[in-house]
Amino acid sequence: MKECRQVASAIRGMKIRGAPLVGVAAAYAIALTAHHSKAKTKKELRKEIEESASLLKKTRPTAVNLFWAVDRIMQKACETIGTAKTVAEAVVEEANKMADEDVETNRKIGEHGAALLNDGDVILTHCNAGSLATVDYGTALGVVRAAWEQGKKVRVFATETRPKLQGARLTAYELKRDGVPVTLVTDGMVGYVMYNRLVDKVIVGADRIVRDAVINKIGTYTNAVLAKEHDIPFYVAAPKSTFDLTHKSTDIIIEERSSKEVTCINSRRIAPEGVNVLNPAFDVTPLKYVTAVICESGVLSREALGRLAANL
Amino acid sequence: MKECRQVASAIRGMKIRGAPLVGVAAAYAIALTAHHSKAKTKKELRKEIEESASLLKKTRPTAVNLFWAVDRIMQKACETIGTAKTVAEAVVEEANKMADEDVETNRKIGEHGAALLNDGDVILTHCNAGSLATVDYGTALGVVRAAWEQGKKVRVFATETRPKLQGARLTAYELKRDGVPVTLVTDGMVGYVMYNRLVDKVIVGADRIVRDAVINKIGTYTNAVLAKEHDIPFYVAAPKSTFDLTHKSTDIIIEERSSKEVTCINSRRIAPEGVNVLNPAFDVTPLKYVTAVICESGVLSREALGRLAANL
Repeated sequence: MKECRQVASAIRGMKIRGAPLVGVAAAYAIALTAHHSKAKTKKELRKEIEESASLLKKTRPTAVNLFWAVDRIMQKACETIGTAKTVAEAVVEEANKMADEDVETNRKIGEHGAALLNDGDVILTHCNAGSLATVDYGTALGVVRAAWEQGKKVRVFATETRPKLQGARLTAYELKRDGVPVTLVTDGMVGYVMYNRLVDKVIVGADRIVRDAVINKIGTYTNAVLAKEHDIPFYVAAPKSTFDLTHKSTDIIIEERSSKEVTCINSRRIAPEGVNVLNPAFDVTPLKYVTAVICESGVLSREALGRLAANL
Repeated sequence: MKECRQVASAIRGMKIRGAPLVGVAAAYAIALTAHHSKAKTKKELRKEIEESASLLKKTRPTAVNLFWAVDRIMQKACETIGTAKTVAEAVVEEANKMADEDVETNRKIGEHGAALLNDGDVILTHCNAGSLATVDYGTALGVVRAAWEQGKKVRVFATETRPKLQGARLTAYELKRDGVPVTLVTDGMVGYVMYNRLVDKVIVGADRIVRDAVINKIGTYTNAVLAKEHDIPFYVAAPKSTFDLTHKSTDIIIEERSSKEVTCINSRRIAPEGVNVLNPAFDVTPLKYVTAVICESGVLSREALGRLAANL
């Protein structure tokens, strides 16, 4: 992609997805604007950057990393002293820095999370919070990877994650490629899997962590309720750029996407024409279902997260 | 279909599905054998019928109606006095009778169940327990139909029910055709729907009701756990031919079907080649999650069902 508009379109159409990746991609989208700009003055450049930022912020409403990343790049553009060229260079540099940081962050999340896993553990994950949802390594799958690299023989159940099938298409692919044993199940099978004691822990990513809840891919809440019913620990692995602790869950817009995502698979209809459809892209998992949040600073219990929010 | 073998193949391949419909179809499959038989003696005919019965019983292991129906037809064949022709006619007549009874049973289930529904209620159903899963009218959808016919303005959430998508393909179609407002959701959205208080009651069918549990389409248990967590009544609508109260859930074989049902949709792959898959066709919902079973005799509370089992 060579210009911001293409990146915005790819984010909107979920060709680029995964909260951390969307954030860094948005940063690079502004970097593209800055790098290719013909602006003579800093003021002109800043106007172009602001337009790009505004376009990007309208792509998807729920994951906070997008807003965090765009704001960070904007901040950099505003505080950089010098010519338009200097500002453009600073913006590109900041995007590169964010990309590097994302990988570093994921490695740390992996390290902290792997300490929670035992040799032989079977992990259930939902959607894709892997290297394809981040710059590299992944958050939830980063934890699995780190444990695997430490020689722990973990195995994974991946839910297919309808409607967009990120579990079937991406998580199954990633883990298979890395040689981590993975079993694909449909979303409705999670109850069966837990009832039959086939999993030890659940680890998912997050699109936004607010003071009272984790907002993540639709289906996460269903899995969290099932985990609680079966006394299975439910972990959320996410960078601090996902934290939005000044807000509560009712403040957040849950994106409603096209009904076609549900009624068509690979462009072929699987439901009658004209049927009414609900297609929220995310759901809200209250903190009472979350055992702990694994971030780059360590493992935060529900209580620790509550204290963090209270101190803001 | 003109011979038993074709019916058996259609049941195995789920071209004919739904526990009550499978039962009646199996009865008719034996009736086809009897009707077209060139057997000269009753003994010869009985051997042909036994072969058909044996073939049918091997098609699918979990739903009990299949075995119930085949045994009932066999019983008829055994107890009928007269020539081979008389026996064949009795078998055909019995199959017709079972088909008529199925519709009558569903009407009664509908009547009993409709009394539980209020005007304006929103019902969540899973898979398809409608006219396409029975001879006509349906069990879970029979309850919805009966309420609708009584003028109660009910609405339905239909889960798409992966992997075979009976909710998207059949339930959404049936209800739309009848003018009952229906909204299609993916299986993972049930948590979201309940969390947002969008449904008042859950009604599902059953493939086998044992003394401690309801065995039904995979995903039923997930929905039942969610219903309990949200204090939403969870009803099972099924004819008494589904009851198998001398057995308990651990006695029952849960059919594991081809991984292709999960990895392919409309013959197109949605997951990487060679990925490991779990594909149980059913799950077990312990009675503690079931508010009541609606059958042709009335509404049986969990306790009443327990007493029924204890008295066997």
